Amino acid sequence: MTRNSTKGIREYIIGADIGGTFCKLGLFNGEGELFDKWKIPTARNDEGDVRDAERNMKVFDDLAESIEKQLTQHNICKNEIIGMGVGVPGPVNLEGVIDNCPALGWKNLNIPKILQKKIGIKISCGNDANLAALGESWRGFDRAYNDAIFITLGTGVGGGIICNGKIHRGAHGCGGEIGHIKVNPYETEIDGCGGRGCLQQYASATGIIRLAEKLGQGREKITAKDIFQRAKAGDELAIEAIEQFGEILGRTLAGICLVFDPEVVIIGGGISAAGEALVDVVRKHYRNWAYPPTKDMEFKLASLGNDAGIYGCAKLVLEQKGD
Amino acid sequence: MTRNSTKGIREYIIGADIGGTFCKLGLFNGEGELFDKWKIPTARNDEGDVRDAERNMKVFDDLAESIEKQLTQHNICKNEIIGMGVGVPGPVNLEGVIDNCPALGWKNLNIPKILQKKIGIKISCGNDANLAALGESWRGFDRAYNDAIFITLGTGVGGGIICNGKIHRGAHGCGGEIGHIKVNPYETEIDGCGGRGCLQQYASATGIIRLAEKLGQGREKITAKDIFQRAKAGDELAIEAIEQFGEILGRTLAGICLVFDPEVVIIGGGISAAGEALVDVVRKHYRNWAYPPTKDMEFKLASLGNDAGIYGCAKLVLEQKGD
Repeated sequence: MTRNSTKGIREYIIGADIGGTFCKLGLFNGEGELFDKWKIPTARNDEGDVRDAERNMKVFDDLAESIEKQLTQHNICKNEIIGMGVGVPGPVNLEGVIDNCPALGWKNLNIPKILQKKIGIKISCGNDANLAALGESWRGFDRAYNDAIFITLGTGVGGGIICNGKIHRGAHGCGGEIGHIKVNPYETEIDGCGGRGCLQQYASATGIIRLAEKLGQGREKITAKDIFQRAKAGDELAIEAIEQFGEILGRTLAGICLVFDPEVVIIGGGISAAGEALVDVVRKHYRNWAYPPTKDMEFKLASLGNDAGIYGCAKLVLEQKGD
Repeated sequence: MTRNSTKGIREYIIGADIGGTFCKLGLFNGEGELFDKWKIPTARNDEGDVRDAERNMKVFDDLAESIEKQLTQHNICKNEIIGMGVGVPGPVNLEGVIDNCPALGWKNLNIPKILQKKIGIKISCGNDANLAALGESWRGFDRAYNDAIFITLGTGVGGGIICNGKIHRGAHGCGGEIGHIKVNPYETEIDGCGGRGCLQQYASATGIIRLAEKLGQGREKITAKDIFQRAKAGDELAIEAIEQFGEILGRTLAGICLVFDPEVVIIGGGISAAGEALVDVVRKHYRNWAYPPTKDMEFKLASLGNDAGIYGCAKLVLEQKGD
């Protein structure tokens, strides 16, 4: 049991980050401190049946059931919960409607409406990468950052913009969608989005493998992790692949930072497991292309790992409480 | 004489946009309506003598004198003025200090401090391109835009980001400094900033001339205006130069809009005199490279011309009044 106010009023927040494989859940006190976290498998609805969307959404039933159980364990009443933040892997409009979420087979779902009905708690909904950006900039470091760019290097490249301490969604929900910035007009291969030369064709886990394969490292199946390990062991092809990756990412970030000019660039996602070696190569190329006043940009490795999203969910609830 | 409140309280704002050749000045009522404007030549201090900076700053004496005269003509007392906004052609920090302004030979000047002492009015100071962005997004169109990207295509390429109705300066004063985004890593010529492949090497008045010259249109001295006129008359080299210009600018804007995702992109500066022909070619290439949700981005020609800066100055004062 957690008391979080000298006045004896108990306030709690729930964070739920719905991913393609797992839903990560967290319980926070009213000051936004995480005191319990757990996860459940994400029930998939690959059929994407729009007509019966609500009925098919087993994931929401599972979430409701799991939350009820956890609240009972902690002896928390629903009226002590000031809100629940929900992250979803797709673009969410201002009303919390997700138009199309191929990762989960969802179409045109009003998440706050559905979940509020099932769980009886006020819901705030956002895009998962944006919420991870919010979580990292708020609680990832020894200070909170008001203006931050978060970039997640995983299977693809995602990102989020934090402006004045809040998510900058953008007029079309594309604030921080930097994985689709066109960095090479001469690219011939097509990206998942249908475009050519997207940043994520080079700066993701699949991108760095593609670069390594082009350099001749293609005889066996390799992973991004292998490439960083081989580079550390002195493998020249791996080193060159990482240099090419760093050059494209560093140069693109130099441009991104002339649009938004943040206090910090936070790098997360699977590739960030490579640690300081990753930051070093990106920063080196960034500095090479940066406009002088932005040369000393701060670069940080994301620090909250899989918890970034639920922290962002909690912050979203706290913001909307303040409004 | 202008009354601007039913309560009979008169409130006024002064805007002063200090350019390399002229200072543009404006008098606004308390609602931000411009009712008088004029300009004076900018006294240059090309020596940039830092030690005697204040004493040398004839431009500030000229401004003070001109403003006194205009206020007397309108029968306005200084205590009726809620503030004066000042635009300067260089990066300004949060305290209104300009570190380096090659255009005017200024170094390390605290503009609000100097001007407040001379004129006796509360001063707010900002970068000229940022203030033009603010003015255009606020008063340039039949609606105000909260989130806008303003790009000015002149001798160079400048810009400004408006976020939630305010200038986004950026942590290093480089918000919207999009003219220095590196768009061509293979460029061999050096830009004024010392870098290579900056957007302004292609998308400015000098940039489009360079593109035309490379295509063979270099026998006589031409201007950007000539190139647009020749293209209109069917000149194939001029058409091709404009296509190349539009391709680079449209593609870069497609990337910029994935960072910030504004409601509108506003195009100003000398080249914007080419009118809808300019917008059409930029939009065509933008759409070709845009990420689908941002394809229908609104593009507008700047509408306030040389008044954009003084409008931005007035808005800056109104914002700080509200704070």
